[in-house]
Amino acid sequence: MPEDSAGLTWKLIEQARERIADKVSVTPVLTSATLDAQAGAHLYFKCENFQKCGAFKARGATNAVFALSEQAALRGVATHSSGNHAAALARAARLRGISAYIVMPDNSAQAKRAAVSRYGGEITYCAPTLAARESTARQVMAATGAALVHPYDDLLVMAGQATAAVELLEQVPDLDVILCTVGGGGLLSGTAVAARTVKPAVRVIGIEPAGADDAARSFRAGQILPSVNPDTIADGLRSSLGVRPFAEIRRLVEDIATVPDEAIVRAMRVLWEVLKVVVEPSGAVPYAALLAPGLALRGRRIGLVLSGGNLDLDRLPWSAPATH
Amino acid sequence: MPEDSAGLTWKLIEQARERIADKVSVTPVLTSATLDAQAGAHLYFKCENFQKCGAFKARGATNAVFALSEQAALRGVATHSSGNHAAALARAARLRGISAYIVMPDNSAQAKRAAVSRYGGEITYCAPTLAARESTARQVMAATGAALVHPYDDLLVMAGQATAAVELLEQVPDLDVILCTVGGGGLLSGTAVAARTVKPAVRVIGIEPAGADDAARSFRAGQILPSVNPDTIADGLRSSLGVRPFAEIRRLVEDIATVPDEAIVRAMRVLWEVLKVVVEPSGAVPYAALLAPGLALRGRRIGLVLSGGNLDLDRLPWSAPATH
Repeated sequence: MPEDSAGLTWKLIEQARERIADKVSVTPVLTSATLDAQAGAHLYFKCENFQKCGAFKARGATNAVFALSEQAALRGVATHSSGNHAAALARAARLRGISAYIVMPDNSAQAKRAAVSRYGGEITYCAPTLAARESTARQVMAATGAALVHPYDDLLVMAGQATAAVELLEQVPDLDVILCTVGGGGLLSGTAVAARTVKPAVRVIGIEPAGADDAARSFRAGQILPSVNPDTIADGLRSSLGVRPFAEIRRLVEDIATVPDEAIVRAMRVLWEVLKVVVEPSGAVPYAALLAPGLALRGRRIGLVLSGGNLDLDRLPWSAPATH
Repeated sequence: MPEDSAGLTWKLIEQARERIADKVSVTPVLTSATLDAQAGAHLYFKCENFQKCGAFKARGATNAVFALSEQAALRGVATHSSGNHAAALARAARLRGISAYIVMPDNSAQAKRAAVSRYGGEITYCAPTLAARESTARQVMAATGAALVHPYDDLLVMAGQATAAVELLEQVPDLDVILCTVGGGGLLSGTAVAARTVKPAVRVIGIEPAGADDAARSFRAGQILPSVNPDTIADGLRSSLGVRPFAEIRRLVEDIATVPDEAIVRAMRVLWEVLKVVVEPSGAVPYAALLAPGLALRGRRIGLVLSGGNLDLDRLPWSAPATH
């Protein structure tokens, strides 16, 4: 286990990259002349929706699971998660041949529950509050001896998520800016440390749903202000910022901007229609920031992390429920 | 212009590749452990839905437009097409700075009409029959002097489409089989010539909607039997087989299998849900062939060309019409 006091180091990211190299995908970067023309900028979409389990979360969970000692691994791993981290942890545990105990809010999307089950994760449902998630997870861990793999407040998880930005900058070395979602902060903190180590001049900007703007408020206040009753369609981004991610975000992120749900849905639809990719609402959040005025990024070379693609196709935000 | 008598040669394909290299995308190949496990085979999805204009058609149209002499190009290009070729030709013409006159059936999908307009193509609508399309196209060409770029019965178009298979075999050299849709036969003939030149042992199998099975019937009969009242959701595959494509298909394709619309819709949904890609019904046809028994391909390394991703998101085959 790394020393927490050093925060997220480049060494942890390099180790993560090597550890997960044959267990996750190198995801492609897509571009679109149509979207470039609309944005007046050069856009590079890093397709983590094509990642194993359909989200970047496979990177961090795999790194954490394979960093465990033989002895610790024997008792399995546990987490509480609204979805993508849960499936990613279940998959990583199965790859290592150990148990995964997953605490999920009982309002989690059906597609996300099914993914956890498909990978053999053992689900315990709880009320959809952070308190219920944490107390249920403590009970599960007490009963099993499983090691907690927190969805974001964990340096090994953050180091894993960071590998997406390392790849992106290898694929598109001359980026000016990276736009990245922020929920608990695992992806944003990893992206910031990785990108600004590889290329100190690159700007990293967090994008958050206006209905779950705790990271933006925390960033301005200089201290963590928890997410209270988050209300956004971006179900992956309702968590409160973690302590370890926040330490890196404060240091290395330029700003955190917010986008309304209406823009998120519009962005999602444009990405499906023009880029031909299935992204979940959370995954469309960085692009949503380019649909509204605010960010002065004309002419820039912008990397956008499409964080995931897991959602119920019967409940698309622009269509009525299915009739069959 | 090439000598038609020689058919589709490797030289034409090499020339096409060079001619279009900086004008179309090298599309990624996606894989999925989940889909591999379900199929009991190794699947490599060539994502031509991410191609310029959202379909492989950009390859052939671009090759044909840039192969024109300066003098011929001045009068523009014309075609009749149900959609993807039309948009691709409009885009290619715009890249070369010439006019594109597009004859479209008046029942063409809205998304496909919009794409043609976006690239500056001049649309003339006609009745949705081959006879009406051809006679309207003749009128347009008589009035403008534009050069016909047929959607598939044209060696330069076939040579352009062939470049997708050349790329695929560079990306995944050890393929055993390639599954490829067949409508007019441009993609299938190009794929067959390219793949079996690069790797003579590779098997190429055409897949066609059961409701538009003229290619399968023609293949068996050894002569072209036209498509009569095609009835399939795969709107890109309703055309009758072309003479030039058929000559190559007879020679080099192992078989042509058919799939019912029900399997096409199911395949499309699985690709959206698991692979996270937006493919149109026609693009899901090769994968549909793996959902039904019939093809004995267990354990094989199978390339599948996802031919396009253009469709109306408000009219998904598994959901009711949108309410807003």
